[in-house]
Amino acid sequence: MSFRSVAIIGLGLLGGSTGLAVQAFLPDVQTTGWDADPATRARAATRGLVHTVCETAEDAVRDADLVILCVPVGAMGEAAAAIAPALRGDVVVSDVGSSKQFVARALAEALPGVAVIPAHPVAGTERSGPDAGFANLFQQRWCIITPPADADTRQVAALSRFWEALGAKVELMDAQHHDLVLAVTSHLPHLIAYTIVGTADDLEGVTQSEVIKYSAGGFRDFTRIAASDPTMWRDVFLSNKDAVLEMLQRFTEDLTALQRSIRVGDGQALFDQFARTRDIRRSIIEEGQDDARPDFGRSDHGRD
Amino acid sequence: MSFRSVAIIGLGLLGGSTGLAVQAFLPDVQTTGWDADPATRARAATRGLVHTVCETAEDAVRDADLVILCVPVGAMGEAAAAIAPALRGDVVVSDVGSSKQFVARALAEALPGVAVIPAHPVAGTERSGPDAGFANLFQQRWCIITPPADADTRQVAALSRFWEALGAKVELMDAQHHDLVLAVTSHLPHLIAYTIVGTADDLEGVTQSEVIKYSAGGFRDFTRIAASDPTMWRDVFLSNKDAVLEMLQRFTEDLTALQRSIRVGDGQALFDQFARTRDIRRSIIEEGQDDARPDFGRSDHGRD
Repeated sequence: MSFRSVAIIGLGLLGGSTGLAVQAFLPDVQTTGWDADPATRARAATRGLVHTVCETAEDAVRDADLVILCVPVGAMGEAAAAIAPALRGDVVVSDVGSSKQFVARALAEALPGVAVIPAHPVAGTERSGPDAGFANLFQQRWCIITPPADADTRQVAALSRFWEALGAKVELMDAQHHDLVLAVTSHLPHLIAYTIVGTADDLEGVTQSEVIKYSAGGFRDFTRIAASDPTMWRDVFLSNKDAVLEMLQRFTEDLTALQRSIRVGDGQALFDQFARTRDIRRSIIEEGQDDARPDFGRSDHGRD
Repeated sequence: MSFRSVAIIGLGLLGGSTGLAVQAFLPDVQTTGWDADPATRARAATRGLVHTVCETAEDAVRDADLVILCVPVGAMGEAAAAIAPALRGDVVVSDVGSSKQFVARALAEALPGVAVIPAHPVAGTERSGPDAGFANLFQQRWCIITPPADADTRQVAALSRFWEALGAKVELMDAQHHDLVLAVTSHLPHLIAYTIVGTADDLEGVTQSEVIKYSAGGFRDFTRIAASDPTMWRDVFLSNKDAVLEMLQRFTEDLTALQRSIRVGDGQALFDQFARTRDIRRSIIEEGQDDARPDFGRSDHGRD
């Protein structure tokens, strides 16, 4: 089996990119879409994010054999309830949310008897809204699918092929493990980035203009992810609370240890900690998950 | 006055970039250089980082009217003492170190009677060593000069023109204020990045391979600066201890507040914190201190 008609609910960065990617890489698949915001619907139609932008969520899903919910995690249950009456009997409902146990519960509750297979393409930029999406967002990125225990294996395989066609590498994972892994690779980094940007903004002895001017010293790397969509991230932290708090606890312990090394002047402990982190960077570049050029190729100054 | 012969002590990322930039943008200025590591000297000669790579530090500085120390902050005093006997009477000694009060004290002590004008070009990449430098590193970046109270204004002006010729924008600042500003824009971000990469590396429930695979979710942004030179950064934290500990204290308080918001489920507090950080990102891009393309132009996927 393969999907012939895909409905996308929510036409921001992820939804828009999915629509553009389907049109680019699965040209025979029909795409419909809907967004709760009329301005976003209008913009989505202008940009052609999907073939047909519908006026209601029900209209968008009526003929679809795959529905992908691309709304903030906290809005998943409501979005699912809104489309429930119009779904086809053989539909597969999936999503792109960043926390999977919560989404699985919300969708199961809103869509009893419907085939729900949650997924999470680990891809994004700091932009959001209908102008942010692009067809190549998923190239070389991982998409984690977290099928419930009773999922139909043919439907799981079809969803895997769908994401692979869009350029992603697919991994199946238990939802609980997903939430733990993403807590450290994504949720904790965002929380820390939001915090430090706020800390810098609050300083009374240093002006915001100075923070901005001298941000090339390291600070700017944090500001990119701290510019991510606030609603989406509020929902991530509320929906993956336990794993995030666990990671935060470990991070704080480690930071306290380094703080103590600085206070007592233990240079060897600092050096040892700083020396062991280079291998991870190298592996990330070898895995194709980041750009090896100095400054990520920022401004192309790396070529002399 | 302007400098006609520049000696560079330490031929890593900053020293090598300075040498290449002088040759590119001040072609009439002679450059000499030295590095404590023979292998680095050999590589510097092959790459032509300076016109003449000398066998001793004294030989490198003998004819120079400007000496720039490009060694880790903790090695500044020793490097200054080594060149002291060979310095010209009219020489200006400067540096590129990341903490300025400590360097000012170390150089004043090692070089009594010598004109010392510390400086800090706020530029860099995560790379280090003699292969890391490039001529355009300082383009559009700020260089902070922290002249002592009794500095000769003509010498300060000459040093400012020197860095401007290399592409930098120059700002004069009190050394104490510099150390506070850089503690938040550079030192704290590096400390946090080193910490989180270590935290991720230590997790027993998540494999390192998983951390690497799913790093595009945010974690990879931290790994770049956590790959920076361990010796340099050890010295930065030991030499700017008070300001770093002060910033760390504020950061920890802010992080604790967000942690509490997550624990009690206060979505409004999370949203408010996440919404106010976007303006800073926008300003950094407008100031030319970062790249506005999605993912900093990583992999050029941003063009659909």
